[in-house]
Amino acid sequence: MLARAPASSANLGPGYDTLAVALDRYVSVEVEPAPSLRVHSEGEGSGLFDDASHLAARVAAEVLGHDRFAVVVRSQIPVARGLGSSAALVVAAAAAAGAADPFAVAAAYDGHPENAAASVFGGLVAATMVEGRPVQAPLPLHDDLAFVAIVPDRNLATPEARDVLPETLTRADVVFNLGRMGLLLAGLADPGYLTPDATGDRIHQPARTSLFPEAPRLLRGLEDAGALAASWSGAGPTLIGVVRAGAVATVRAGAEAALAASGVPGRVLALGVDRRGLVYGDEAEVTL
Amino acid sequence: MLARAPASSANLGPGYDTLAVALDRYVSVEVEPAPSLRVHSEGEGSGLFDDASHLAARVAAEVLGHDRFAVVVRSQIPVARGLGSSAALVVAAAAAAGAADPFAVAAAYDGHPENAAASVFGGLVAATMVEGRPVQAPLPLHDDLAFVAIVPDRNLATPEARDVLPETLTRADVVFNLGRMGLLLAGLADPGYLTPDATGDRIHQPARTSLFPEAPRLLRGLEDAGALAASWSGAGPTLIGVVRAGAVATVRAGAEAALAASGVPGRVLALGVDRRGLVYGDEAEVTL
Repeated sequence: MLARAPASSANLGPGYDTLAVALDRYVSVEVEPAPSLRVHSEGEGSGLFDDASHLAARVAAEVLGHDRFAVVVRSQIPVARGLGSSAALVVAAAAAAGAADPFAVAAAYDGHPENAAASVFGGLVAATMVEGRPVQAPLPLHDDLAFVAIVPDRNLATPEARDVLPETLTRADVVFNLGRMGLLLAGLADPGYLTPDATGDRIHQPARTSLFPEAPRLLRGLEDAGALAASWSGAGPTLIGVVRAGAVATVRAGAEAALAASGVPGRVLALGVDRRGLVYGDEAEVTL
Repeated sequence: MLARAPASSANLGPGYDTLAVALDRYVSVEVEPAPSLRVHSEGEGSGLFDDASHLAARVAAEVLGHDRFAVVVRSQIPVARGLGSSAALVVAAAAAAGAADPFAVAAAYDGHPENAAASVFGGLVAATMVEGRPVQAPLPLHDDLAFVAIVPDRNLATPEARDVLPETLTRADVVFNLGRMGLLLAGLADPGYLTPDATGDRIHQPARTSLFPEAPRLLRGLEDAGALAASWSGAGPTLIGVVRAGAVATVRAGAEAALAASGVPGRVLALGVDRRGLVYGDEAEVTL
């Protein structure tokens, strides 16, 4: 079976571990019966683990209960950059192997229900664990919004990114994040209300800046170029701006200039919202 | 000038100090020139402070810069019950006295930007302080939703209610609230996704239960009677259920039975959403 899942951007500032949006870069996984395990990958992240250790092979083997299959992975999603590549890969692999509930598989495997929910359902989602079960619900997202991502050519592995986070927060800091989360969700539903304040955060962005000192200047670069608001994407290093669809080209050019000025190697991607999430069969072809 | 502002319910579970909805009970304030201060009040909270110490008189005097006026207050909003009566009163008094920005006056006076925002703008609002300024934005709220409130005949003053709150929270508790906030806002936009999980909270509801031990049973009573979710209203003691408009009568009856069974004196109110917020002049008449 062939299945495809979109990339995603989690957190979006205040929504740490609970908010994500699906983006129009994709990974497809095809799983077919074979005498013994074969793994082939193309595109982003290809060739690194073309054996039983490949995440898609491990997920498919777990779903199927055996390893007599061939798996082909085609990806447009930069790996380990904070764009939900592993959640999307697990979703697509679980689906291609015939899992009944790819969301549950991916939330358990990846540990991020929010990335998994965006990759399965598309659009803007709230997701969290409720008594051990992943729960998700769609949130209003205005049609006129798109995203511009600065994707540094730099690894910032999630465990390290998580180690720097504070274990406790003051009540004032919690109110800070809840208030920004409310403003952000209001602004994503009605961009007339979206301002840079909405992506403020005191949980992870300030702490992670020690791992990526150029981040604040690049975030400001996105906003100065016309993004309505900007935040870290997941655990980084990708930084993402929310933009009016008509402003994508301008913001992209401004972000490229900011990236060049920073001296950080990397690229800038213009990304649309994916509203379909997981798809199967002929619709799941990914072009590289 | 005559002005009217609606009641409001803040927090709604996870949205501590940042989320509120305007409800269709009102307070009106009329301010007219007079040789010296006169204060008259009718309805809820009337007769307690019919002098210069009345909150409406103090606010109007501050806005006007003198006390040569007569003020008449008519209120349908239970006082000190967690239904935003003081925010609504300050909004209406500031507006009746001619304040240019009643939201700013009320957020500063009351200390609760979320109640103030609901009373000024109506509907469901996110509100918070951003560098000392109150900021608000409207959130999507489905037309089919209404509220049923259990209003105990018991005072639970806000300062005391605030003293019992934890000063710090673990990151896991913060993620708990952010996740519920996402689910709640998704469910208020699309009630098909609204479940009792959405009003979970680890900031204020568990701590305040020590001041009102019957609260968990009454919240369960609202949900058992058909509320999609239930929470404390503001700092309590009012408990409020979110209900489909068609279920108001059933939930109200169930809530009345739960209240009677608990032995707590009080009443149950069926409340609609107010979507207009602050209004002036002929539209601002309040019937008692």
